[in-house]
Amino acid sequence: MTASRSRSIAPASSLDACPVARTVDVIGDRWSLLIVRDAFDGVRRFGDFLRSLGVARSMLTTRLRTLVEAGILSAQPASDGTSYQEYVLTPQGRELFTLIVALRQWGEKYRFGERERHSTLIDTRTGKPLAELQPSTVDGQPVAPEHTQVVRPS
Amino acid sequence: MTASRSRSIAPASSLDACPVARTVDVIGDRWSLLIVRDAFDGVRRFGDFLRSLGVARSMLTTRLRTLVEAGILSAQPASDGTSYQEYVLTPQGRELFTLIVALRQWGEKYRFGERERHSTLIDTRTGKPLAELQPSTVDGQPVAPEHTQVVRPS
Repeated sequence: MTASRSRSIAPASSLDACPVARTVDVIGDRWSLLIVRDAFDGVRRFGDFLRSLGVARSMLTTRLRTLVEAGILSAQPASDGTSYQEYVLTPQGRELFTLIVALRQWGEKYRFGERERHSTLIDTRTGKPLAELQPSTVDGQPVAPEHTQVVRPS
Repeated sequence: MTASRSRSIAPASSLDACPVARTVDVIGDRWSLLIVRDAFDGVRRFGDFLRSLGVARSMLTTRLRTLVEAGILSAQPASDGTSYQEYVLTPQGRELFTLIVALRQWGEKYRFGERERHSTLIDTRTGKPLAELQPSTVDGQPVAPEHTQVVRPS
């Protein structure tokens, strides 16, 4: 039991040369991804995450701690001078914006029925939705998966 | 126990108007994300996923079934005429490429030490890595998270 438990906390692939695996090791679970989503939407306090997510208190505590330890969130005193603690995205946490947008755009396309409405992410300066993210070359040409290959370090 | 179990299989937010939540409901776990990563790398057979991921057989069975039910993978007879079954990305599964690239690019930047080497995703036509994904307006202007807002359906 101990071995299996410690493995689920620090998976073997955290020493993996694959960047996908390393990201997934730190944020590859439903709650962590939704906490980060909420943080982009301005949620900062434990009680507000709790209400927004409907997550168990102990689970939220664990996930927030892991995200702070991973340098994705920082815990800081409340901005209004009260004794609350606030969880705010660090610079590297803010760079997860692209990932959250990718999750959103795939969901918009494939996880809603024709007559179902979904929330939309807009650019507040224009009121328009963002463009669809598209893997591309440095010259801006779209790249399909069959034109790519993973090269392992030699 | 039953209530809590069934909730973890079909989370409340599967009826959520948030596309991020709906995507996370179907693919927001470590194994599903790594299975999809492997599928892009050409892994197709149960035994090959098993070896690549070091996942428990029962876990892999469950995750593959969920990904097939969600329309992300399709199970089909082996291309070489043997009796093996192969798991292949469907068109909507292939569209998760952007998400996998986003996971990879964040990992490359933030989950490796300075002297650590990581695998690289290259365009096979040029041998060069892909450009960094960047949320942008339809006119191609970069969009930072603070210039965005989620608008819920009215």
